[in-house]
Amino acid sequence: MLKTPLNTIPKTLAALSDYENLARERLTPQSWAYIAGGSADELSMRRNREKLDDLCLLPRALKDVKLGGTKTTLLGQQFEHPIISGPVAYQALAHPDGEIATAMATQAQGGLWVMSTLASRSFEDISNQVESPRWFQLYVQPTRSQTLELIQKAEHFQFSALVITIDAPINGLRNREQRAEFSLPPNVRAVNIDTPPPLAPPGEGKSVVFQGLMAQAPTWDDIAFIQQHTSLPIVLKGILNPLDAQKAAELGVAGIVVSNHGGRALDSVPSPVEMLPIIRQTVGDEMMVLADSGVRRGADVVKLMALGANAVLIGRPLMYGLATAGALGVAHTIRLLRDELEMTMALCGVGSIEEINKHCLWPTA
Amino acid sequence: MLKTPLNTIPKTLAALSDYENLARERLTPQSWAYIAGGSADELSMRRNREKLDDLCLLPRALKDVKLGGTKTTLLGQQFEHPIISGPVAYQALAHPDGEIATAMATQAQGGLWVMSTLASRSFEDISNQVESPRWFQLYVQPTRSQTLELIQKAEHFQFSALVITIDAPINGLRNREQRAEFSLPPNVRAVNIDTPPPLAPPGEGKSVVFQGLMAQAPTWDDIAFIQQHTSLPIVLKGILNPLDAQKAAELGVAGIVVSNHGGRALDSVPSPVEMLPIIRQTVGDEMMVLADSGVRRGADVVKLMALGANAVLIGRPLMYGLATAGALGVAHTIRLLRDELEMTMALCGVGSIEEINKHCLWPTA
Amino acid sequence: MLKTPLNTIPKTLAALSDYENLARERLTPQSWAYIAGGSADELSMRRNREKLDDLCLLPRALKDVKLGGTKTTLLGQQFEHPIISGPVAYQALAHPDGEIATAMATQAQGGLWVMSTLASRSFEDISNQVESPRWFQLYVQPTRSQTLELIQKAEHFQFSALVITIDAPINGLRNREQRAEFSLPPNVRAVNIDTPPPLAPPGEGKSVVFQGLMAQAPTWDDIAFIQQHTSLPIVLKGILNPLDAQKAAELGVAGIVVSNHGGRALDSVPSPVEMLPIIRQTVGDEMMVLADSGVRRGADVVKLMALGANAVLIGRPLMYGLATAGALGVAHTIRLLRDELEMTMALCGVGSIEEINKHCLWPTA
Amino acid sequence: MLKTPLNTIPKTLAALSDYENLARERLTPQSWAYIAGGSADELSMRRNREKLDDLCLLPRALKDVKLGGTKTTLLGQQFEHPIISGPVAYQALAHPDGEIATAMATQAQGGLWVMSTLASRSFEDISNQVESPRWFQLYVQPTRSQTLELIQKAEHFQFSALVITIDAPINGLRNREQRAEFSLPPNVRAVNIDTPPPLAPPGEGKSVVFQGLMAQAPTWDDIAFIQQHTSLPIVLKGILNPLDAQKAAELGVAGIVVSNHGGRALDSVPSPVEMLPIIRQTVGDEMMVLADSGVRRGADVVKLMALGANAVLIGRPLMYGLATAGALGVAHTIRLLRDELEMTMALCGVGSIEEINKHCLWPTA
Repeated sequence: MLKTPLNTIPKTLAALSDYENLARERLTPQSWAYIAGGSADELSMRRNREKLDDLCLLPRALKDVKLGGTKTTLLGQQFEHPIISGPVAYQALAHPDGEIATAMATQAQGGLWVMSTLASRSFEDISNQVESPRWFQLYVQPTRSQTLELIQKAEHFQFSALVITIDAPINGLRNREQRAEFSLPPNVRAVNIDTPPPLAPPGEGKSVVFQGLMAQAPTWDDIAFIQQHTSLPIVLKGILNPLDAQKAAELGVAGIVVSNHGGRALDSVPSPVEMLPIIRQTVGDEMMVLADSGVRRGADVVKLMALGANAVLIGRPLMYGLATAGALGVAHTIRLLRDELEMTMALCGVGSIEEINKHCLWPTA
Repeated sequence: MLKTPLNTIPKTLAALSDYENLARERLTPQSWAYIAGGSADELSMRRNREKLDDLCLLPRALKDVKLGGTKTTLLGQQFEHPIISGPVAYQALAHPDGEIATAMATQAQGGLWVMSTLASRSFEDISNQVESPRWFQLYVQPTRSQTLELIQKAEHFQFSALVITIDAPINGLRNREQRAEFSLPPNVRAVNIDTPPPLAPPGEGKSVVFQGLMAQAPTWDDIAFIQQHTSLPIVLKGILNPLDAQKAAELGVAGIVVSNHGGRALDSVPSPVEMLPIIRQTVGDEMMVLADSGVRRGADVVKLMALGANAVLIGRPLMYGLATAGALGVAHTIRLLRDELEMTMALCGVGSIEEINKHCLWPTA
Repeated sequence: MLKTPLNTIPKTLAALSDYENLARERLTPQSWAYIAGGSADELSMRRNREKLDDLCLLPRALKDVKLGGTKTTLLGQQFEHPIISGPVAYQALAHPDGEIATAMATQAQGGLWVMSTLASRSFEDISNQVESPRWFQLYVQPTRSQTLELIQKAEHFQFSALVITIDAPINGLRNREQRAEFSLPPNVRAVNIDTPPPLAPPGEGKSVVFQGLMAQAPTWDDIAFIQQHTSLPIVLKGILNPLDAQKAAELGVAGIVVSNHGGRALDSVPSPVEMLPIIRQTVGDEMMVLADSGVRRGADVVKLMALGANAVLIGRPLMYGLATAGALGVAHTIRLLRDELEMTMALCGVGSIEEINKHCLWPTA
Repeated sequence: MLKTPLNTIPKTLAALSDYENLARERLTPQSWAYIAGGSADELSMRRNREKLDDLCLLPRALKDVKLGGTKTTLLGQQFEHPIISGPVAYQALAHPDGEIATAMATQAQGGLWVMSTLASRSFEDISNQVESPRWFQLYVQPTRSQTLELIQKAEHFQFSALVITIDAPINGLRNREQRAEFSLPPNVRAVNIDTPPPLAPPGEGKSVVFQGLMAQAPTWDDIAFIQQHTSLPIVLKGILNPLDAQKAAELGVAGIVVSNHGGRALDSVPSPVEMLPIIRQTVGDEMMVLADSGVRRGADVVKLMALGANAVLIGRPLMYGLATAGALGVAHTIRLLRDELEMTMALCGVGSIEEINKHCLWPTA
């Protein structure tokens, strides 16, 4: 018998890992496998945490930071802090309020919310209840017209940036899901897109991967096409290879997200924290570079920003907060991270987001 | 009570490690110890996996690979993919169909099958039911005439290459087998060779190892002798030392297999993935270099090929597939690996086997 | 049912880790969480032990050390050994005798005792029963007059140095405490200071951390102010950053303590043993540099001194000794460490504290 | 109820680690703690195994080693193999036959046996039953006359070398023993020396370690004195520091043993395998350098010899063999190691002890 969501936050709920435990008691084993799992052997998922934990902060004592704060500007918009609520699919899996809850909680905490192409609540519902600024995450659709339709909706509902996910043209090898026999329950679906028809079997001697899935996967040409058909700033999400970062810079996109999709796409890849310094060096100081995958502590936020990120995204923690206590849980999750971020900054002698740099780390990056 | 082989593949069977678990329920503890075990403390067996897992893939996004595929040419013959079914002894231990099942499943999947000198099914049976191309693995026999007899059989039955195993003149210290009191059951034996008589005790002050086993072990002279007595291309299997690779190149053999025999021969040796780059550099770009020992994921195939292998061999996974579900299990095992290989290539932005190179790895080899 | 303190030391009590186990049986889960826990994920707390254990001693054989000893001079005062009883708060949590017991045991063992601002026994009580030399640890108070009052008390009661803690302007993220719902029991409080009023909520858009806690946190100006208002030598406790060490040297303080507060302040920071060599190099040979965080063995004392410390502090072990067997337990705890220190020195061929240097380590620091 | 020694060796007894398990069932918990334990936190004891396991052998294929063997010359005497039965104290703890059994088993296996100063059987008994060559391990005694008396006995009973242990002037911190309340049972004692009187308490302000134990510990002067009073070759056992090796070379001793006393003396020191290459380089090619601490596999023997050892000693494995099956168990233990050594040599393509060198390792030392 699954537990029901909490109405109040117990005093013993001290950190995001506590939410993970409480969420597990409130999710079916199938949904848990889907949300908490990574791809294949989950090497990258574990590596995300290990590489963040391996990195040391270097505190600084006796600095005057009484004027400090965490205000953050992203693509011209100001937020209270740099912790972005990332585009998680099918949020109704965690709680009936789904995306409405995460969006409202995010905005109550002064943060940026990103809607997924695979949202379980409609553009209309969300826009009625949650104000701009918010960003829209785009999965490029099988046809260009479907893609343009989504972009136009995002524009219409005043989303202020497009976050195009580029690291998942194929679903990761979600072995944990498969073993748990996960499938979407009847009441949860991606309401804003047409369910794609099952992929036709490839012909004799053809490959489901190459001639099937990859034949409709986006390429750099599609990014250029989208750039020509929208005035929204474009952020490419899912970059680990510095060559891709360089290409993104050459195309003139507004930003990138260094990410391994939380260890859910290709397994056995580096953690973002490993690639971030090289990528920041590749694209220069001006481009907006975000990072995600494994952020669970305010210390992680400082570490990623010290290595070059302008802000960070969280994913699973939103679902854990949502499953545990709905919007209240999400808001508290973000609040915990914010508080930890502030305390970490204060103890590193840093009074603003802009001051976070490699001198906050040891050994210096 | 051992479970019986499955007739269908359950949807929850997601990866080769699942086959390992299912096979264990269908093998006697003795056979399990023989098949799954390594030598001595199994340091090398574990190292094989650890060193593969330590290596990172570097994905590449938004590349057009819709024309991609995995076709592979080895010694002039084309296969659908580079995953070779290696020469595992005594396959009837895992399933009554034994070698017939692995060979048929391999060919159904468009792959290359290698018959072991210690096959439990006869040259005749196999050749009646399984077409060429297939390769024959040769253990050099106590006398040259016995060796030549085997080679002539291989030629007669249209095997197209000889894979001479050179890393096991002595059985590894199979402590796990010994503790489980493994011995071949009555219905399983190497039907294509005469059972060698027990080794005569060495004389006073002589060593069973040096004056016994090693006195009949092959040397480089024997390789040269075999070269002179067959027109089949020769592949030397079981090389870790770059000096041995160099010697092989000087002898002009057709190829080598970088291998530690799955951690079953000498324990406490490097993993093939560690020696492969040096060995490839030693022998140059032209020689066929294969690798094995620890391959369990499509990602492993890409990693080994990125370090210089032309193709890879699997061993134990064949036995696990066989024990779990006979030919069907083997075919599905290979299919899983192929699919993983294709997905890994696609997410690394690589459309053909030839394009796999060190840029697929991080840090670049 | 908690066990009561022991009256005699059992022969099987061989090392400080044994005290830890015995103490746990005598402390409430809440007090245990408070005393034994670290901050956040306790990365730094574990790292403290790991980095000490990673370091190797290099023994030296057949040296004549029959005149050897461990006498140690700190700020002009001589002690029998370099193991300082650090300033642990609220010692009555562990045993009703609290600070009186640790102080008497420390002096019986010829060591230096440091009183905490958060002592649970009064200046008067302590001074009546425990002679000088002893040092006073100062937490800078919300107002300068409160701070000066404490300093004047320390002077009045003949404390001979001020140890100003600078790494905890904010409590660490004591998640373990929070989960255990620790709060001070009614009979334990900091009797020498006024309980600070609860922090007023910061105004709209203000941060509890920056505009609240950090607004009353000490800065370098406060250190300079204190220097001007006391004749006591000043030791700054809680330095990891070489820049802070340099600043301390420039201010001319009498000494510093390289420390991460036992992993109780900011988590995910280096261990003192990692920063000590750089810090010693930064401040030169003359300044007194102490170290703490993780010392549990005589070998640890030698390691830290070989890397540049003049003496070391212990914290939690005092509480474990106290909880296990009151003053007797503390005295025995210190005795165990002293004996281990002497044996380690003897086996490293070192006859005096001054001779301990980097040649005692391998690889040489 | 303890099990009794075996009369035959079961076929499932495959490796030295099996003896360890069987011995544990035949020893009291107290004796087990004494024999199997190391000092303090047993860091060095574990490190001994880890550092040996970390090192890789590099096999060599197809070499002709049919004339191979393991004959070994040490101080002018030839043995069948380089595995020396080290000087373990109080062997009657493991089996009533004690030293007689290990000596006879050792000689049956063609090896060298070293008698401990703390033997539980007399010089006379041993000499009656076990022929030369054998060596005598000397603990320098409280007085020079006692030491000379022991040396003269060793000479009288035709021991052919003196192995002077120099790393244990103080017993290691045997915390495991202390927790198990180990003491010698009434029937086991060092029959060849007078039980030393309990150490007089040191005077006021004196240290038990420095003014007590170390006041009667040997120094380099004592080594020189012994050299002048015996014609036996002298081997110094217990060297890790290259400076001590250099000093030994300058004194002109016949050999040294690189050792950390099996992790039983000072804890947290390097493993011999780490120091051996530096020490071999320090003393040059001519001096006999032996090594011990952690040898459990034939592969370990090759590794240590590849790094510069002329032969290796085993300690605890003798006691495990003895406890399990008396002399039979010891003989089989040595036989297992010999066989593993031969197999390892054969698979490394090495036909004699002299040929073992750094090219057998990867990476090359």
